[in-house]
Amino acid sequence: MNIAGLLTSAGINIGLCVLFLSLYSILRKQPGNVGVFFARRVSHQHLRPYEHRIERFVPSAGWILKAWETTEEELLASAGLDAVVFIKIVVFSIQIFSIAAIACLILVLPSNYYGKQMEHAQIPSEELEVFTIVNVQEGSRWLWTHVVALYLISCSTCTLLYFNYKSITNLRLAYISRVPANPSHFTVFVRSIPSFMQDSYTDSVKKYFMKYYASSYLSHQMVHRCGKVHKLLTDAEKMYKMLKSTTDENQGKPSFVRCGLCGEMTSSFRILSDENNVKTNNEVHNFELTRNQKEYPAAFVFFKTRYGAFTASQVLQSSNPMLWVTDLAPDPCDVYWSNLCIPYRQLWIRRIATLIAAIAFMLLFLIPVTVVQALTDAGRLARTFPFLKKILKWKFMTQVVEGYLPSVILMLFLYTAPPLMMLFSAVEGSISRIGRKRSACCKVLYFTIWNVFFVNIFSGTILKQLDSLSYLKNIPIRLGQAVPSQAILFMTYIMTSGWASLSVELLQPFMLLANLFSRYILKKETPPDGTLSFPYHTEVPRVLLFGLIGLTCSVLAPLITPFLLVYFTLAYLVYRNQFLNVYIEKYKSGGQFWPIAHNSTIFSLVLAQIIAIGVFGLKKSPVASGFTIPLVICTLLFNEYCRQRFYPVFKKYPAEVLMDMDFQDEQNGRMEEIHGQLPVAYCQFTVTSPDFCRSGHSVLHDTGKNAVDSEIKDLENRPSLVDSEPLEENQQHMNVSKC
Amino acid sequence: MNIAGLLTSAGINIGLCVLFLSLYSILRKQPGNVGVFFARRVSHQHLRPYEHRIERFVPSAGWILKAWETTEEELLASAGLDAVVFIKIVVFSIQIFSIAAIACLILVLPSNYYGKQMEHAQIPSEELEVFTIVNVQEGSRWLWTHVVALYLISCSTCTLLYFNYKSITNLRLAYISRVPANPSHFTVFVRSIPSFMQDSYTDSVKKYFMKYYASSYLSHQMVHRCGKVHKLLTDAEKMYKMLKSTTDENQGKPSFVRCGLCGEMTSSFRILSDENNVKTNNEVHNFELTRNQKEYPAAFVFFKTRYGAFTASQVLQSSNPMLWVTDLAPDPCDVYWSNLCIPYRQLWIRRIATLIAAIAFMLLFLIPVTVVQALTDAGRLARTFPFLKKILKWKFMTQVVEGYLPSVILMLFLYTAPPLMMLFSAVEGSISRIGRKRSACCKVLYFTIWNVFFVNIFSGTILKQLDSLSYLKNIPIRLGQAVPSQAILFMTYIMTSGWASLSVELLQPFMLLANLFSRYILKKETPPDGTLSFPYHTEVPRVLLFGLIGLTCSVLAPLITPFLLVYFTLAYLVYRNQFLNVYIEKYKSGGQFWPIAHNSTIFSLVLAQIIAIGVFGLKKSPVASGFTIPLVICTLLFNEYCRQRFYPVFKKYPAEVLMDMDFQDEQNGRMEEIHGQLPVAYCQFTVTSPDFCRSGHSVLHDTGKNAVDSEIKDLENRPSLVDSEPLEENQQHMNVSKC
Repeated sequence: MNIAGLLTSAGINIGLCVLFLSLYSILRKQPGNVGVFFARRVSHQHLRPYEHRIERFVPSAGWILKAWETTEEELLASAGLDAVVFIKIVVFSIQIFSIAAIACLILVLPSNYYGKQMEHAQIPSEELEVFTIVNVQEGSRWLWTHVVALYLISCSTCTLLYFNYKSITNLRLAYISRVPANPSHFTVFVRSIPSFMQDSYTDSVKKYFMKYYASSYLSHQMVHRCGKVHKLLTDAEKMYKMLKSTTDENQGKPSFVRCGLCGEMTSSFRILSDENNVKTNNEVHNFELTRNQKEYPAAFVFFKTRYGAFTASQVLQSSNPMLWVTDLAPDPCDVYWSNLCIPYRQLWIRRIATLIAAIAFMLLFLIPVTVVQALTDAGRLARTFPFLKKILKWKFMTQVVEGYLPSVILMLFLYTAPPLMMLFSAVEGSISRIGRKRSACCKVLYFTIWNVFFVNIFSGTILKQLDSLSYLKNIPIRLGQAVPSQAILFMTYIMTSGWASLSVELLQPFMLLANLFSRYILKKETPPDGTLSFPYHTEVPRVLLFGLIGLTCSVLAPLITPFLLVYFTLAYLVYRNQFLNVYIEKYKSGGQFWPIAHNSTIFSLVLAQIIAIGVFGLKKSPVASGFTIPLVICTLLFNEYCRQRFYPVFKKYPAEVLMDMDFQDEQNGRMEEIHGQLPVAYCQFTVTSPDFCRSGHSVLHDTGKNAVDSEIKDLENRPSLVDSEPLEENQQHMNVSKC
Repeated sequence: MNIAGLLTSAGINIGLCVLFLSLYSILRKQPGNVGVFFARRVSHQHLRPYEHRIERFVPSAGWILKAWETTEEELLASAGLDAVVFIKIVVFSIQIFSIAAIACLILVLPSNYYGKQMEHAQIPSEELEVFTIVNVQEGSRWLWTHVVALYLISCSTCTLLYFNYKSITNLRLAYISRVPANPSHFTVFVRSIPSFMQDSYTDSVKKYFMKYYASSYLSHQMVHRCGKVHKLLTDAEKMYKMLKSTTDENQGKPSFVRCGLCGEMTSSFRILSDENNVKTNNEVHNFELTRNQKEYPAAFVFFKTRYGAFTASQVLQSSNPMLWVTDLAPDPCDVYWSNLCIPYRQLWIRRIATLIAAIAFMLLFLIPVTVVQALTDAGRLARTFPFLKKILKWKFMTQVVEGYLPSVILMLFLYTAPPLMMLFSAVEGSISRIGRKRSACCKVLYFTIWNVFFVNIFSGTILKQLDSLSYLKNIPIRLGQAVPSQAILFMTYIMTSGWASLSVELLQPFMLLANLFSRYILKKETPPDGTLSFPYHTEVPRVLLFGLIGLTCSVLAPLITPFLLVYFTLAYLVYRNQFLNVYIEKYKSGGQFWPIAHNSTIFSLVLAQIIAIGVFGLKKSPVASGFTIPLVICTLLFNEYCRQRFYPVFKKYPAEVLMDMDFQDEQNGRMEEIHGQLPVAYCQFTVTSPDFCRSGHSVLHDTGKNAVDSEIKDLENRPSLVDSEPLEENQQHMNVSKC
C-alpha cells in the first residue's frame, strides 16, 4: 500500500465517521428515539423535549461540546467511579500517544525514510514500508533514534501510569468513605456452614457467631436454595410484566419497584394491580411451606461495626479451612444470587475448569472460523445455493463475497466471545455481578489480544507458528520479523474496526432497531424498557487492545500514531456522551478496572521492548538490543513497585478508613439507625409479607421508617425512579416493597 | 555394570556402613565424647556415665533399639514438632517405597527381564540394563505392567500424602494451642512507622494504636538501630565468653543465662563476675546516649488478646500500603534482630534480587566446578607441584586422583550451597530465624534437584542441553531418553552418597575433631560449648532428593527400590537417635516443613509421570501414554485440593483456636499474668538496667516474680539450663537477666 492508498482509505473512513456522527446528531433529536439515546436521562425523568421541528433535522455538534465540557466531578457524580476510571484509561492513552507521536514523527520517521540509500519516489506514491523500520539498513548508526524514542515512550508511560494509579487510588479511597452507610461494609458472606446433629444451619450460624463474635455480631440472614423457587419467581415476574404492559399501558411511567431499588435479576416485585394477585399468592404459600427444608449452608452475617465485619472476613475462621469460609459481602444490588448456592467445595474445581475452557476456546477459536470461511468461496456458494448463481456471475459480487464475507464471519464469531466469557465467569462462581464482569473483562482481554494481535501477526497457519513459538529463545526474533510488516495492516484495522466501533457504539443500532420494531410493528407508544449498564467487559479490552497495538507499533511504524490519536480522541467524546446519556450504573466495582488496564499496559510495554530487541537483533545492532534490555528490567521492577504500593488498596479495604467511618457514625449517633436497616438490605425472595424476610433473622430490629431514610439518601445518585418522586412517598413504597 | 558388580559395590558399602555404625557405638560410650554425641542431654544434665571399662570398647546395637522404641509422643515432647514432621517425611518415604518395591518387583521386573527375546546370560553376569525398561521391546504389550505400577504408586502416594497432611495439620493445631502463653501470639511486628513533625516514632505508634485499637492495645516496644551497638555487644559477649572460660573453668556448668532463655544470637547476657564489669559498663553509658537518636521505625506492639493481635496483623492498616505494615511477630527466641532494621521499602527489591542471585548460582554452579575439575588431571598436577611427581608415577595413584578428585571437588563445592543459600535468605529480609531456614531449605531443595538430578541426567554439557530443553515439546521425550539409562548411576549414588551421608551424620566428624582438638591440643577438660540446632535446610532437601530419585526411577528400573528402602530405614534410625541425643530445638516452625515436602513429592510424582509418558512414547505405545495423561491431571487436581483443604492452616492461625485460648485464659484469670510478662518478652539490648527495656514501653506493667512464672512453665520443654536447677532460683535469675 502506498501513501495515496492510505490517505484514500483514511478519507473514506473519516467520511463515514462524519456521516454516522451527523446521523446520530439527527436521530437523537427525534422524540421517538429518546428511549435509545437518553435511556439514562429517561430513567431520571429530567428531559426537555426538542420543540422546533426544523432544528430536529439539522446535524449539530452540540453533544460534542456537552461531552467535552463535562468535568470529572460531574461525571463522577452522575456515572460513578468506574466511568471515571474508564475515561481516565482513554485520557491516559491520548497522553501517551501524543508523546509517542511527537517523539516518533520527529526522531524515528526521518531515520526510517532516509534509511536505505535508495531513490525515493514522489511522496504520494511512496510505499508505506519506506516509513517503517523495514527501510533501515542493517547495522545502521541511526538505530539510536529508535532506542531514544523507546526510552521516551517507556519512561513517560511509566510516569503516567504511576500518577494515574495514585489518583485512582485516592478516588477509590474517597469512594469507600463517601457512601456513609453501605450495608456491604457491615456484612460478611459466610459459606460452608457445618450443621450439627439437630441444629438447623441458622442455629449453627447463630451459635458460632454468638460464641466467637459476641461483641460485634448483630444478626444474620440465611440463603435459601434458589432452584425451583427462583425459577417460578422469575416466570411469575415475566408473566406479570407482560400482563402489566397491556393493562397499565396508558400510565406511561413504570410502577414496578425492584428489590433494593436496583437489581434486574433480584427477581422481586411489588404487586400493584389486584387482578394479578390471585395466581402469585397461591405460589407464595407453596414457597413458604418448602422454605424451611431448602435452607442453604450459606448466610449473610451482619456486624455492628465495619471493622468487625472486615476482620471477620479477612481471617481464617476454622481449623478446617473448608468450613466457615468468610468473605466481605457484595453490595445488595450487586449480589449474584444464583451463585450463592454453589457449595464452597466446588469453587476451586469450577475455577480450574473455566480457566481450561477459556484457554481452549481462546486457542481453538480460529479453527471453526477458518472452516466456515473456507465454505464461502463463490464457486462453492453457487453450487450450494443455486439461486445465487446469477448474482455471483458478476465479477464485482464475487469480489465482494470472497473479500468481505470471511471478515464478516470472523467479526460475527468474535461477537460470540464476550457472552461466552460472561458465561464462563458466571460458572466460575463469583458471588457479585461486578466480580463476574471483571473476570469476564480479563478473559475477553486475553482473548482479544491473542486472536486479534497475535493471530494477525502470525498470519500463516497459527498452529504451525505456535509450534515454532514453543522454541522459547526464538520468540523475540519471530516477533521482530513479523510485527513491522504487519504494522500497516494495523493502521487500516484502527480505521475500520476502531473508528467504526465508535460509530456503532454511538448509534446503538440494535437498540434503535428494537425501538423501531416496537413502535412501528408492535405499535407501542412507550419505548422498550431497556436501560443498559455499560459493557465494561467488551469496551475495556477494546481500548486496551488499541493501546497494545499503539505501543508495539509506534516505534517501528510511526505513521500509526495519528490514527490512534484520532481514535482515542473520538473515543473520549463518544464514551463521555454515552455515560452521560445512555448507560446507568447498576453495580459498581470502585475502580477495580484500573489494575487490569495497568497490567495490560505494562504487558504491552514489555512486549514492545521485546519486539524492539528482536528487530534490533535482526538489524545486527547488538548495542541497541543491549540498551533495551535494562528497559525491560526497569519496567518489570516498576510494575512490581506499583503492585506493592497501590494494588493492596484495590484488593482489601484499609482498616484505618473503615475505623474512621465507624468512629464518625458513632459520634453522630447514626450507628443505631444503620443497624436497623441492615437486616432488610439483603432480600433473596421478596414476594411475601415483610415477616418473611424478618423471620430469617435471629435478632430482630425495628425497621421503621427512619431506618430506610438514610439508605434513600445513599441511593440518590443511583439511577432509579426515586429522585423524580417526593421522598415521603418513596419511603412508604420501600417499606412495603423491599420485603 | 552387571549384577555381580552391583552386589560387590553394595557389599562394600554395607561393610563400610556396619563399620561406621560400630565405630559410632564405641565412640559414643567414651566419656570424652559426651559433648559430641549427647550434646542435647548434656545441656539437660541428666546423663549417666558408663562405668564398666570393658563394655566401653564393645560395639553394641542398644542405640538402635532405643531409637526404634521411642514413641512419637516422646519424640514430640523432647525434640518438638519439626522433628516429628521430619521423621514423618522419612516414614512416609518408607511406606511409599515399600509399596513401590512390591509393585515393581512383582509386576515390572519380570516384564523388563523377559522383554527382548534375547539369550539371557547367567544372572550374576547379567547386565543391569536387562532389568530396566530399556530391555522392553518397542510396541510391547507388556507395557501395561508399567502403567499399572505407575497407577499403584501414584494412588498410594496421594493417599499417604493426604493422611499425612491431615495428621500433621492436627499436630500443628495442637502445637498452636499447647503453648498456653506464647508471647508471639499477642504481639504484632509493625514496620514502616511514619513520623509526624515533632513526634518520635514511639509517640507515633502510641497515638496510632491508642486511636484505632484502643480496646485491645496494651503497649509497645521500639526496635533500635542495630548497626554499631549490636556489633559492639557481640564483640563484648565474645570477649566475656573467653575471659569467663579461663576464670570459671572449674565451675563446670555454664553460668551464662541468655535473653529469653533461648537464643544464641540475641546477644545479651548477665554479668556474673565483677572483674569484667568495668569495660562493659562504660560501653553501656555510650549506648544510652545514642539510643534516642537511633530509634528505628519498627516496633513490637502488644495486644490484650490473641485475636486482637491476629486481626491487626492480617488487615491492611493504612490507605498507603507501604505504611504501618503489620505482621505477626516471631517467637522471642526466633527473632532475627538484624533484619528488623531493614526498611520495608527495600524488602520487595531484596526478594527479587536474592531470587535472581539464587537462580543464577543454581544455573551457573557447574561452570567453576568443571573448570577446577579440568585442572586436576594427573599430568597437569605433576607439572604444577613437582613434588607430587613421584607419587603420581604409580598407576594406581593416577587412577585415584583422576577418578576421585573431580567428584571430591564437586562434593566440596556442593557443601558451599547451603551456607550460601542461608546467606541469600538472610539478605532476603526474613524477620525470624526459622523463616530464614525455611526459605533456605526451599532454595537448597531447588539447587539439589537441579544440580544432582537434572545435571546427572543430562550428563553432557548442561548448557547445550538447556538449549534443546527450551524447545518445550521435546521435554518428555528427552527425559524419557535420559532417565532410564541413568537409573543405574542413581543406584550407586544412593549407596555412596545416601548411606555414607547417614554415617557422617551419625559420627559428626567435625564435632569429633573439634572435641579431640580441644581436649588433646588445648588440654581443656570441658567440652566445647556447641549444642546444635538440626540443619533442616540441608537434611530435608537430601531426603526429598532421594524421594525424587525413587519416584522417577522405580517404575523404569525396579532394582533401585531395595537400596532406597535400606537408605530410608537407616535414616529413620539415625535421625531419631540424633534428635534424641544430639540436637536441641532452638526455634520452631510448627510443622511448616511439611508443605515443602508435600509440594516436592507432588513435583516428583508429576515428573515421574511425564518421564513415563516420554518413555512410552519412545516405546511406541500411544495407549500407555494416553493412560498416563489423566494420572498427571488427577495428581495436579489432588495437589490443588490439598492446597485448599490444608495449606491455609500452615499460612495463618485459625481464629477459632486463638479465640478459644483467649477465652480459657480469661476464665482461668491468667490474662493479667500474661499481660504482665509481655513487655519483657522481646528485648533487643539487655546489658543495662531493667529500666532500659521498660522505658521503651508506653504502658508500664508490673513484671513481678509471678509474671515470669508461667513463662518458665512454657519453656520447660525447651532445651536450656532451666530444668536442672530449682525453679525458685531461676525466677530470680530471669528477673535480673532478662532486662
